[in-house]
Amino acid sequence: MVRWEPGARERLQAAALELFATRGFEQTTTAEIAQAVGLTERTFFRHFSDKREVLFLGQDLFLQIFLDGVTAAPPTAAPLEVVASALHSATSFFPDERRSYSRLRQSVIDKNPALQERESHKLSGLATTIAEALRSRGVQEPAATLAAESGVTVFGIAFAEWIRQGEERSLATITTDVLGELQNLTRSTAPTSP
Amino acid sequence: MVRWEPGARERLQAAALELFATRGFEQTTTAEIAQAVGLTERTFFRHFSDKREVLFLGQDLFLQIFLDGVTAAPPTAAPLEVVASALHSATSFFPDERRSYSRLRQSVIDKNPALQERESHKLSGLATTIAEALRSRGVQEPAATLAAESGVTVFGIAFAEWIRQGEERSLATITTDVLGELQNLTRSTAPTSP
Repeated sequence: MVRWEPGARERLQAAALELFATRGFEQTTTAEIAQAVGLTERTFFRHFSDKREVLFLGQDLFLQIFLDGVTAAPPTAAPLEVVASALHSATSFFPDERRSYSRLRQSVIDKNPALQERESHKLSGLATTIAEALRSRGVQEPAATLAAESGVTVFGIAFAEWIRQGEERSLATITTDVLGELQNLTRSTAPTSP
Repeated sequence: MVRWEPGARERLQAAALELFATRGFEQTTTAEIAQAVGLTERTFFRHFSDKREVLFLGQDLFLQIFLDGVTAAPPTAAPLEVVASALHSATSFFPDERRSYSRLRQSVIDKNPALQERESHKLSGLATTIAEALRSRGVQEPAATLAAESGVTVFGIAFAEWIRQGEERSLATITTDVLGELQNLTRSTAPTSP
């Protein structure tokens, strides 16, 4: 008989991250993670397919929150305005209470090339998803992919800033600043066509 | 005694790509690749550390050609102009004779998630390298990373278009068009500051 463990997933996730950060991702076993919170390895595998999944849980929700922002943008919004709406929607996924978790998670990923590859791939999947949503709104290529990829770039830069030691601004504030920088960047360049 | 095999690396690379494309990457062994061109598996491993390396050979050269373009830009160039110079330098790495090889390589990567992760990671390494070169020129953050990432986005879109079936324009021509689209994209958005 399987006994229901309230909050088991969250406890496993917190313990795993702690172990990954202190001992290293490779050096931590699923048995040790389970043991750290008094659960069995079997319980671990009821919640996660492998230890990598602990770091990449909730990816569907992560994508959906960007898509909600795309939907929320008015029909007349320019592509980059739609993307800005997606980015601002996503900031609700990362409230300030989550900052220290996100920071620790990133420190684990930064130390492991395979996790870095997985993270890069996750972000390129995000760009693909946003580009598709833009095309559904009638945005042509390459504008749809350019806008989506630029959005993911802005998100990546804002997120890295948000988790920097000592940073206290919210992700929403930083995102607005970086979006403004993107516009300055292309504006400060001499036009390529008359 | 090791006998010198003229062009062994290129023959192995061509045979490997052919096998990956027809049988699948996972299904192809290094022994089969070597055998296809009458060489031993030992010779294969003198040229490549594993079969994945066949697809990711020449990465240092790939990065260097973008950096050459950064160096070639005049000191007064705006960040995005420096990036445009890097992208145009890189087009010499992909002459039209290489298009069918690049197309076949991409079709192999597109079928394999692990190879896709590696490719995403390679492109994020390119962005890091260009951002560093921009910072050495005195470009501040986040402008340096934004410009570098935008450049890699433009490169990715232009490259995907270049290898599309039926596409005949050069990578240089497509790159110029996509850079223009990037500027239009940010111009068509209402300014966020007065």
